[in-house]
Amino acid sequence: MTDTATNMRLRLPITCFILEIILIILFGVLVEYDHDTDAKGHVNSTSPSHSDSHADSPADYENEFYYRYPSFQDVHVMIFIGFGFLMTFLQRYGFSSVGFNFLIAAFSLQWATLMQGFFHGMKEGKIHVGVLSMINADFCTGSVLISFGAVLGKTSPIQLLVMAVFEVTLFAVNEFILVTLLGTRDAGGSMTIHTFGAYFGLMVTRILYRPNLDKSKHKNCSVYHSDLFAMIGTLYLWMFWPSFNSAITEHGDPQHRTALNTYYSLAACTLSTYAMSALTAHDGKLDMVHIQNAALAGGVAAGTAGEMMLTPFGSMIVGFLAGIISVLGFKFLSPILEKKLKIQDTCGIHNLHGMPGVLGAIVGAVTSAVATSDVYGHGMEKVFPDVESGERTASYQGGIQAISLAITLGIALLGGLIVGFILKLPVFGAPSDAVCFEDSVYWEVPGESHEASHEDQLTTVRAEESERLNS
Amino acid sequence: MTDTATNMRLRLPITCFILEIILIILFGVLVEYDHDTDAKGHVNSTSPSHSDSHADSPADYENEFYYRYPSFQDVHVMIFIGFGFLMTFLQRYGFSSVGFNFLIAAFSLQWATLMQGFFHGMKEGKIHVGVLSMINADFCTGSVLISFGAVLGKTSPIQLLVMAVFEVTLFAVNEFILVTLLGTRDAGGSMTIHTFGAYFGLMVTRILYRPNLDKSKHKNCSVYHSDLFAMIGTLYLWMFWPSFNSAITEHGDPQHRTALNTYYSLAACTLSTYAMSALTAHDGKLDMVHIQNAALAGGVAAGTAGEMMLTPFGSMIVGFLAGIISVLGFKFLSPILEKKLKIQDTCGIHNLHGMPGVLGAIVGAVTSAVATSDVYGHGMEKVFPDVESGERTASYQGGIQAISLAITLGIALLGGLIVGFILKLPVFGAPSDAVCFEDSVYWEVPGESHEASHEDQLTTVRAEESERLNS
Amino acid sequence: MTDTATNMRLRLPITCFILEIILIILFGVLVEYDHDTDAKGHVNSTSPSHSDSHADSPADYENEFYYRYPSFQDVHVMIFIGFGFLMTFLQRYGFSSVGFNFLIAAFSLQWATLMQGFFHGMKEGKIHVGVLSMINADFCTGSVLISFGAVLGKTSPIQLLVMAVFEVTLFAVNEFILVTLLGTRDAGGSMTIHTFGAYFGLMVTRILYRPNLDKSKHKNCSVYHSDLFAMIGTLYLWMFWPSFNSAITEHGDPQHRTALNTYYSLAACTLSTYAMSALTAHDGKLDMVHIQNAALAGGVAAGTAGEMMLTPFGSMIVGFLAGIISVLGFKFLSPILEKKLKIQDTCGIHNLHGMPGVLGAIVGAVTSAVATSDVYGHGMEKVFPDVESGERTASYQGGIQAISLAITLGIALLGGLIVGFILKLPVFGAPSDAVCFEDSVYWEVPGESHEASHEDQLTTVRAEESERLNS
Repeated sequence: MTDTATNMRLRLPITCFILEIILIILFGVLVEYDHDTDAKGHVNSTSPSHSDSHADSPADYENEFYYRYPSFQDVHVMIFIGFGFLMTFLQRYGFSSVGFNFLIAAFSLQWATLMQGFFHGMKEGKIHVGVLSMINADFCTGSVLISFGAVLGKTSPIQLLVMAVFEVTLFAVNEFILVTLLGTRDAGGSMTIHTFGAYFGLMVTRILYRPNLDKSKHKNCSVYHSDLFAMIGTLYLWMFWPSFNSAITEHGDPQHRTALNTYYSLAACTLSTYAMSALTAHDGKLDMVHIQNAALAGGVAAGTAGEMMLTPFGSMIVGFLAGIISVLGFKFLSPILEKKLKIQDTCGIHNLHGMPGVLGAIVGAVTSAVATSDVYGHGMEKVFPDVESGERTASYQGGIQAISLAITLGIALLGGLIVGFILKLPVFGAPSDAVCFEDSVYWEVPGESHEASHEDQLTTVRAEESERLNS
Repeated sequence: MTDTATNMRLRLPITCFILEIILIILFGVLVEYDHDTDAKGHVNSTSPSHSDSHADSPADYENEFYYRYPSFQDVHVMIFIGFGFLMTFLQRYGFSSVGFNFLIAAFSLQWATLMQGFFHGMKEGKIHVGVLSMINADFCTGSVLISFGAVLGKTSPIQLLVMAVFEVTLFAVNEFILVTLLGTRDAGGSMTIHTFGAYFGLMVTRILYRPNLDKSKHKNCSVYHSDLFAMIGTLYLWMFWPSFNSAITEHGDPQHRTALNTYYSLAACTLSTYAMSALTAHDGKLDMVHIQNAALAGGVAAGTAGEMMLTPFGSMIVGFLAGIISVLGFKFLSPILEKKLKIQDTCGIHNLHGMPGVLGAIVGAVTSAVATSDVYGHGMEKVFPDVESGERTASYQGGIQAISLAITLGIALLGGLIVGFILKLPVFGAPSDAVCFEDSVYWEVPGESHEASHEDQLTTVRAEESERLNS
Repeated sequence: MTDTATNMRLRLPITCFILEIILIILFGVLVEYDHDTDAKGHVNSTSPSHSDSHADSPADYENEFYYRYPSFQDVHVMIFIGFGFLMTFLQRYGFSSVGFNFLIAAFSLQWATLMQGFFHGMKEGKIHVGVLSMINADFCTGSVLISFGAVLGKTSPIQLLVMAVFEVTLFAVNEFILVTLLGTRDAGGSMTIHTFGAYFGLMVTRILYRPNLDKSKHKNCSVYHSDLFAMIGTLYLWMFWPSFNSAITEHGDPQHRTALNTYYSLAACTLSTYAMSALTAHDGKLDMVHIQNAALAGGVAAGTAGEMMLTPFGSMIVGFLAGIISVLGFKFLSPILEKKLKIQDTCGIHNLHGMPGVLGAIVGAVTSAVATSDVYGHGMEKVFPDVESGERTASYQGGIQAISLAITLGIALLGGLIVGFILKLPVFGAPSDAVCFEDSVYWEVPGESHEASHEDQLTTVRAEESERLNS
């Protein structure tokens, strides 16, 4: 399948090379190792206590690396395997799902390092990088991949890269307003990552609305093994979500508690997802779409309040509700959004990231508002430093959290609107309606030898029979 | 495929909702954060030494989270990806293998937290949770998933949930008797997890014996790609088994040593598995069933003695024997168990978890009995605290270990017997003999577009030929 | 498919048993726990500070386990899942790719422990093992698996085991010369692992040249789902490469910095890979072979200089170039190597490990040569201890690095030459040209029920038509 309109021969290389060269130049000018990564930061030790190493000082063992890197790797797996394989459920779009996910994630994490570094405070004109910047960049990338889910199958890799350029920037702006200016707490990103990514992506797909998408309808579904590949993505997201939500929380009990809360939220969510799937699906059978997606809503919904004293009990209620809302969204809301609002949401990100993200923001606001020093003790300074210091009251913090949700929705929708129109430019090589959800537009797809051999056999049968008949 | 007997429309939602609501209520009443997870536990530091964080105290860096959580995540992957995908080898039961595994694991880990917390000692009427309870709950869940392997393809999700309710409870009772009452050492669970899960599951499948299971025999086998999916499960179990066995051992050298011993046991086991597979299988060819399962027996067999001074040499011998036993079991014992004892063991858990678990228990008893302070030094207090304190001799400890195996077998078999009869109640919606090993009983299964097109083609060929002949 | 020449019934068991028994005996005689793994090393603490544990001493928390084991597990996943699944791209060689990878890795890591222990310095006649030896053994195994990639599809499991016996030995010799004798820095193994493994494997496949390999050409390609399986391998290698390169660097900033540099190198490499793939491939479409392999070249190329003060900027340039070189290699050099030099390189290891490995070695030599104490400060002692101590100058170190590359190439090529001829012995059961790239030579392959049923149907159609015609 070849088409000049979608041909990437020059467009993709030019885009990738220009973007990467800009990145390299900006990194050369702006980026430096942070204190824990720089050789110069090393403190010489006169009394090495550890036999296998050269002159280890106690500071070497307190390097941020050891307290964040395992979480980083879990997040990294979620970004590349989790998101990538979750989207392989489409029967003929597996290469693009995993492959474009790979491409835009590799770009976004570099661009995010610059944008987040720029907004989060440069020191002496430099952006300082280390494991924390790696995690934050992966987080921002996650947001772009959520939006990718809405437009999956309907966009060219260049459109996706362009979307990433703008979305990463707006993400950093929104994150700056919330976290730095307002002092919003959102460690696992119910707002900054999920709500933002979802509503941005939904607005983009609205603007890119294709009235004749029915033409490729038969490809917009799964086959048996593609659903199994997707379950790899689902399970990695599910298993590592506790690491995701806790990756950048404060050291000690906050990190520990966030992981625990998320774990319970996800477990409860899984049970309500199965229940609702059987209840709503055809003939009481379970629907893989629900299992693959809704079972993860508990992680999204625990993104803001996870680090707070939500209690296991509270976490389970949140997860339980998230699963119910999410399945109901897939069953009833998505068809309405498509018909009435012309939002073609390929992966149903509104049900997995949109509504559960909003739920998570609300839970976070309420949990903040009711925080007391009776419950938090000295730990208050790590979760709500502004409340501990007396700068603001708990209910004020709760109000800030609620306002943050509104701001996030505003920036996401407005940003998606503008970016959507930009993506409509014909130069980006979007596929035509008939070849959406089809890898062969952008990929060399191997001949299916089995298929081929069957067709050969059929041809042979036909030929033989013809011969017999003619003789 | 629809059938009122197996229809889950109301039964599954009701079961899931009731179970989850009971869990939430009990968590609300009984569960609290432990010291390392609670914000109140935080100790204020007046001299922050770490630049990136608010007032970190040294205690924050000694939080149990940092010493257990990476192991927890490895165990978590084994439970959800490892067990889940190991069972996808069946050609038309992948959705159920991964999906039911997911459901019953998500339920079991919550229920296990309560049951284990209840038996392992509540403080002031509360169960305290943190990373250790998360690992222990995953361990208990592993036991349920082992039993699932025996009944795979022949049970409804409701039967599995009911089985989990009882099995988790009995697991906690057995674990309490062994670990708390008797002071048995079994860090990696050769007895508590593997032996228990295997013989419980074997007894359940014995009670659920289906004389006419031949009706679905053609589905009880693999296809090419389903075997590759299963290898994902196998390899994750294999790679992370060192983390599994060492996840709850004492800090320092015991945890380190357990991982090392398990690693050598598995490596040796893999070589004997390949050897035995080629030796016993048809035409000297390797059998995927052996590779997928028997190569893991080395991890099971190192479950008890792994934390002891088993030495790499000893570990390799144990793994080597485990691989041989396991392949021989698949080749010769399983058919006998099915014919003579009417035990239909879908995944061959007797060969992977049963016999290697018993082997591991015996190795553990012997290794305990010969422990000397010459070999253990001060480390004795971490591996055998009762021997170190002089409360018991090493040989007495060995005796206790042997008795523990007998107790485990007894509780597992008796428990399986009772639970098996409970599961026979027709209300649980078990599939009929003809539709065992078939996803479409409980799942919406996507139309196989390729298949369909082939059949269409065949129909077309037939029609065309008929036409020709008739004309 | 059965053939006495390739029958493994006796040959494989005998080989495996002999090798494993030798290993066990040598481990029994030579191997001991290291200080951090031995119970005797435990220091009793009189003031337990940690509530959950028996008498933890601060030393328990500084056990090497906690600072290396997460990296080890990431490396472990790369070895078994990464390499194993990367090679499943072949349509009918998935069992062998994953399965032989598993077998030779399990053997090699045991044998490597002995060989590396022997060369790296035994203490009191014993090899001491712990997490560092585990990582080093996995590294050496990686080298063998790289060579496996060159001969994939054309060798029996016995040939692979024999190759591993020799290659591991030569790897340890080369590593000893470089790291111990010359003081070469090569933490991520651009030279010791990638260059060595690649050129060794290329020479072996040259000696094993099959002029009539065209006979099995139709099997030497992928199908749709086999390419997706391969992407699992690719992504795990990509994600965990930062752990790989940093796994054995010094504690603190070097480990942190290495991970960071590798991460940037890989990200930049991914963008240049996509660009070059679209630019060079047919019709501007992306080629899965490039994405699966070339996107990883950035990790290889950062293997030597990763621990140095390469800066993010420098890392990105290195990765960017590695991706370009690698795709160009696949597109233009591989066909030439095959036609002119008779090197049949199944996986294109020259493009993924060979050239990028050499690039990494050169980058490392240059970066070493320009190292100044202005840039490194006190950190110099951890990265270049001989320069810090004044024993050698930076430019001398750079020279040593360059010489090390030459030595590595020499040993690899000479070793591959000799081992290639050994592998030609007919007793090892190599497959004939017509059945290369075919699992059924060495594996029980499940009947493809769908296939089967189609053929059945075809037979039926034929039979029916014949009957009609005859009647």
